[in-house]
Amino acid sequence: MTQETDPQEQPTTSGLQLTLEAPLPLDGGGTLDNVAVAYQTYGSLNADKSNVVLICHALTGDQHVANDHPITGRPGWWETLVGPGKSIDTDRYFVICQNVLGGCLGTTGPLSINPATGKSWGITFPVVTVGDMVRTQALALDQLGIETLLAVIGGSMGGMQVLEWAARYPTRICAAIPVATSARHSAQNIAFHEIGRQAIMADPDWRQGAYEDAGVKPTKGLSVARMTAHVTYLSEQALHRKFGRNLQDRTRPTFGFDADFQVESYLRHQGITFVDRFDANSYLYITRAMDYFDLAADHEGRLARAFKNSPVRFCLVSFTSDWLFPTPESRAIVRALNSVAAKVSFVEITSDKGHDAFLLDEPEFFQTVKGFLDAAAEARGVN
Amino acid sequence: MTQETDPQEQPTTSGLQLTLEAPLPLDGGGTLDNVAVAYQTYGSLNADKSNVVLICHALTGDQHVANDHPITGRPGWWETLVGPGKSIDTDRYFVICQNVLGGCLGTTGPLSINPATGKSWGITFPVVTVGDMVRTQALALDQLGIETLLAVIGGSMGGMQVLEWAARYPTRICAAIPVATSARHSAQNIAFHEIGRQAIMADPDWRQGAYEDAGVKPTKGLSVARMTAHVTYLSEQALHRKFGRNLQDRTRPTFGFDADFQVESYLRHQGITFVDRFDANSYLYITRAMDYFDLAADHEGRLARAFKNSPVRFCLVSFTSDWLFPTPESRAIVRALNSVAAKVSFVEITSDKGHDAFLLDEPEFFQTVKGFLDAAAEARGVN
Repeated sequence: MTQETDPQEQPTTSGLQLTLEAPLPLDGGGTLDNVAVAYQTYGSLNADKSNVVLICHALTGDQHVANDHPITGRPGWWETLVGPGKSIDTDRYFVICQNVLGGCLGTTGPLSINPATGKSWGITFPVVTVGDMVRTQALALDQLGIETLLAVIGGSMGGMQVLEWAARYPTRICAAIPVATSARHSAQNIAFHEIGRQAIMADPDWRQGAYEDAGVKPTKGLSVARMTAHVTYLSEQALHRKFGRNLQDRTRPTFGFDADFQVESYLRHQGITFVDRFDANSYLYITRAMDYFDLAADHEGRLARAFKNSPVRFCLVSFTSDWLFPTPESRAIVRALNSVAAKVSFVEITSDKGHDAFLLDEPEFFQTVKGFLDAAAEARGVN
Repeated sequence: MTQETDPQEQPTTSGLQLTLEAPLPLDGGGTLDNVAVAYQTYGSLNADKSNVVLICHALTGDQHVANDHPITGRPGWWETLVGPGKSIDTDRYFVICQNVLGGCLGTTGPLSINPATGKSWGITFPVVTVGDMVRTQALALDQLGIETLLAVIGGSMGGMQVLEWAARYPTRICAAIPVATSARHSAQNIAFHEIGRQAIMADPDWRQGAYEDAGVKPTKGLSVARMTAHVTYLSEQALHRKFGRNLQDRTRPTFGFDADFQVESYLRHQGITFVDRFDANSYLYITRAMDYFDLAADHEGRLARAFKNSPVRFCLVSFTSDWLFPTPESRAIVRALNSVAAKVSFVEITSDKGHDAFLLDEPEFFQTVKGFLDAAAEARGVN
């Protein structure tokens, strides 16, 4: 399959798009009708449809993995890993990434129109879960005629989706690569998300979630939320190496509240640029989905039960300086997998780049993914 | 000296208060006239004034170390450590704590009236430094007739003041106890402070700092700032132990944006209660003072020079799970002190309570302080 062959695929500014034919059942109860799913593909589907790699994006990611972003114009967020001749080699594999349910780049979310009112859902949109995101992805793949996946890969919230895929659809996937992630969101991570949500909801332009109708945007609140999250994505070492206590375009402190330090200037920039490409209510919904994620709780409190008799080959990756999703979170998953004799490998990569390492230039990570994915393809007999 | 003996001492709702007789020179340039200093004392000054212990408070602390707080009614913030028969034994030592310059509980700060305009300074108040805070304390002690101190002790920003005291007034202090602190604020810590400041300044009720004149308060922004800081004061382990993923007064998630999790409810409470006792502009100024703190930079880039030939006895304390002021920050100070052959002891205390450990029930910490302080008193011949 290429982008030209399927009449379901409607090109939009968000890339390709389809609409789910059946109502989508939600973990929180009820259903959503006419769910739109925006996605991007790279490479070509082979004859027996055995070369599909699904990429799951993180909180503020989107489907634009390996093409310039339609809003920012910047390179795709995983071009380090995905492309011709790269670890996820688009000359060999057919790569798909879908914007998650609740997102804001073409897939149905709080910014979408509620058919019942003709207005944006805003915070009347139902709260969704990582499970709902994955169910949406599976239904979209059904409509695209793709039954099984060679591999599912993702980092952070993307890794949560990978784990959910392995738990819900063990016979639809051959290999799973959860990167820098956890089987349940920690109290500290919930706390940081709650700060972001409170910052958004404290902005009077949030208008109790109905800002879209009012023609305003809670940009200041969303910017503070982004700044908070961004600090958690970096390590203390990385911040020290990049900025230290260096001053911004000056030789002496100004004794004022301007961005005297480079790290302040950098953070402000992160906040300001984020609001152009992301919807504040989507931020509320997606952080909430992460907070609710607890795979063990969904399996009588035992994580191992999520993977019982799983035929999936797992490769987990963590990074030494990641304090948001630290290595013990991955080890807990490895232990659960080992306890049910699942096929699992685990690599902890030495990096001082923090949680963001999975998006950056980490050759050992690239080699790990390439080696594991090619072995999975070999085992499956992918040509 | 007791609270009754000195006509300079004016009881106020903030405790005792005096006014500096001379203009206060500031590190950023210029001077401040008629600086008010609010303070509290505990115990009695002995005949040769050799038993004075100065306590320096942290960012959101104040002078109410060991008495009920006049606004919140809660116990003093260091009653764990200070009181009759405690580590800092008020039956033996005369304890003083002053509200810092730039604070909001009786010492001159942005909430004070600018005599030139008859209005609150707001953000026209000059940016102050940790050095300015310490100079203010020294001048206030001069007026109280106290020339030398048996010891100076403080945690976090309080520890920065202790280091500054040792560097600026090495002959005025016998012993220094910097706890859970650093000789320079790190890039990560500056980043977290900047988030808090941006949250305050994003609140429309901040009114460019002139909210006091407008009769409003940026409570939402200040609350988000407090929540952000509060998470950094705790360890991941402490958050996990206290809250984990426990739900608040419910058995199932609500699939909404209420405080479903206990950790959310706790954080919101921290934010809401803080705004009753703290001024938003003070928060801006005091965080800024911490950001600017860099003792080595003030001494030709070499921390050791700050302590050359120092007669002061040092005892540094850090806590294992403190990621805001981690142990390596204390070790760097110890190395500098060792390089100039200063008298220094260092204790890293095992605790899972994070940065907040210095305020909590940590028996090893209490014993460390008691042992060191009593030895210093012995060496000085305090009766």
